[in-house]
Amino acid sequence: MTDARFAALAGAKVLITGGIGFIGSNLAHRLVAIGADVVLVDSLIPEYGGNLFNIDGLDGKVTVNISDIRDVFSLRYLVQGREIIFNLAGQTSHLDSMNDPNTDLEINCRSQLTLLETCRKHAPQAKIVFASTRQIYGAPDYLPVDEKHLLRPVDVNGINKMAGEWYHILYNNVYGLKATALRLTNTYGPRMRVKDARQTFLGIWLRLACENKPFEVWGGAQLRDFSYVDDTVDAMLLAALTPGCAGHAFNIGGDRTISLKDLADLVIKANGAGTYVAREFPAERKRIDIGDYYADDGFFRKTAGWTPRVPLEEGLKQSIAYYRQHLARYL
Amino acid sequence: MTDARFAALAGAKVLITGGIGFIGSNLAHRLVAIGADVVLVDSLIPEYGGNLFNIDGLDGKVTVNISDIRDVFSLRYLVQGREIIFNLAGQTSHLDSMNDPNTDLEINCRSQLTLLETCRKHAPQAKIVFASTRQIYGAPDYLPVDEKHLLRPVDVNGINKMAGEWYHILYNNVYGLKATALRLTNTYGPRMRVKDARQTFLGIWLRLACENKPFEVWGGAQLRDFSYVDDTVDAMLLAALTPGCAGHAFNIGGDRTISLKDLADLVIKANGAGTYVAREFPAERKRIDIGDYYADDGFFRKTAGWTPRVPLEEGLKQSIAYYRQHLARYL
Repeated sequence: MTDARFAALAGAKVLITGGIGFIGSNLAHRLVAIGADVVLVDSLIPEYGGNLFNIDGLDGKVTVNISDIRDVFSLRYLVQGREIIFNLAGQTSHLDSMNDPNTDLEINCRSQLTLLETCRKHAPQAKIVFASTRQIYGAPDYLPVDEKHLLRPVDVNGINKMAGEWYHILYNNVYGLKATALRLTNTYGPRMRVKDARQTFLGIWLRLACENKPFEVWGGAQLRDFSYVDDTVDAMLLAALTPGCAGHAFNIGGDRTISLKDLADLVIKANGAGTYVAREFPAERKRIDIGDYYADDGFFRKTAGWTPRVPLEEGLKQSIAYYRQHLARYL
Repeated sequence: MTDARFAALAGAKVLITGGIGFIGSNLAHRLVAIGADVVLVDSLIPEYGGNLFNIDGLDGKVTVNISDIRDVFSLRYLVQGREIIFNLAGQTSHLDSMNDPNTDLEINCRSQLTLLETCRKHAPQAKIVFASTRQIYGAPDYLPVDEKHLLRPVDVNGINKMAGEWYHILYNNVYGLKATALRLTNTYGPRMRVKDARQTFLGIWLRLACENKPFEVWGGAQLRDFSYVDDTVDAMLLAALTPGCAGHAFNIGGDRTISLKDLADLVIKANGAGTYVAREFPAERKRIDIGDYYADDGFFRKTAGWTPRVPLEEGLKQSIAYYRQHLARYL
């Protein structure tokens, strides 16, 4: 919290889209602790990540504006004078993107393009950090996946996030906006959606573990990496503060690689008890499954001086502790 | 025209979006000669490639439907019962895409997604061949550019075409539609737009050469490849006929690589006379210039048995001959 690297953010005028969501609200808490001037914009769409309890304790310390990033005029007002925009608003459900591709397009393509046009005209000074996703790589050709890997998204969400990311890079290159995209791996921690598996399967695992109910592990052998949200927040802040990050898309990985089965065991260990049931992938899910994935995030570590600080065991323990205390606010 | 490889298309029910445009109308002429049942859909937006003279001679031999691919309901009707859809409708101007990104998004992203959703529901049997573009590669890391090269589009049009292409691949992979994308290099020949440089600089070169006026060569040292439209049409037909093409994006290159200056000399030679003026790139254009580009299209040649048949000199000669006769219909 008192990391000297972030001292320059004291007093900085920051806007966070998706600011009441999982990562956005963790960013908000951190930025308030640093002393930044923070505006949060969020639409609180019930199926997405926004939850007012996420900003519990920030009353009077942040400005909250409930509006949708598809709302061009509210955005035009909100970006003005902002020095840093953490652009995290998005539709993140892969199955939703297949069932309703048009809404995904509106949020993940059009609204991103609109935001960038708006910044170009009304906030050309703003640095923008965009939350992209490892999903845009699709099924890896090689591991770990670095930024030289082809993008081959396997769902509508991935295609639209890929376009959304490239709009940012383009506006950086052509219009001199300063924009960086972070291709986040699975992020977890306090304030994530745990009501269901819409945000990530790990959310529902943590919930069920807290409720002393068995959770389901689909497949189990797949290798993945997981980023504890405090580390993700570090990455976002460093991306905003490091001039060399502008114009690039960077992988953000975890502190280690682990199979889902081993992760399930760690969740149970962090919880002190629990069980899980191993399941076969359903056909619908299998078609868009990408097998193993873990990131080579050396480019970002080198450019921004970032390194994950929270080991998986510790992050899971903190997550469980959070939901043991606050689970009712997330159901 | 009487190529035995295309005999299977006799009687085939075909829909061409952008069917009154440059490549679409050349496809239409060829398919009519083969004996296919052809429906053309085109919006005839004045700034785009559609020109009714392009389908001169096809009266009574094709069904012409003037509507826009943004028009969901007309598309729903038009795709029904079609066995092959050549999906060529698009916004192609790079500068327009920067000045009006939203229209580019509507046409090159949303309409593509809508068309695919419509096919999934109302024409699941259709094979779809999508006209993608080499523009999505951006500035090459290496030459010739093969399909393993990263996509790094340098304008809004390139980003949206990239998304449009990936929607096709996705719907092939997930829903069993049969879709292929061809990343076309600079295509030229009869029926291209020559009124201005909106479609390609080569159009305005050919026009000015025919008018015995000097044309302008920006830069001049850049290496490029050029596909004569008859060869492009061959590629589209083979993509539709070759089962192994489904689910892939293929480069389509030219018969050779040439610098713009040497191309200018060839145009003058094909025309029998003429001059050009060498110009420096303007700053606005320079920022999105990609330097040299030429394709490695070996993957498509191998998969579909395609090879360009018209040498550049011959293609330019035929183009000049066409515009000498019909220039007034293109101004």
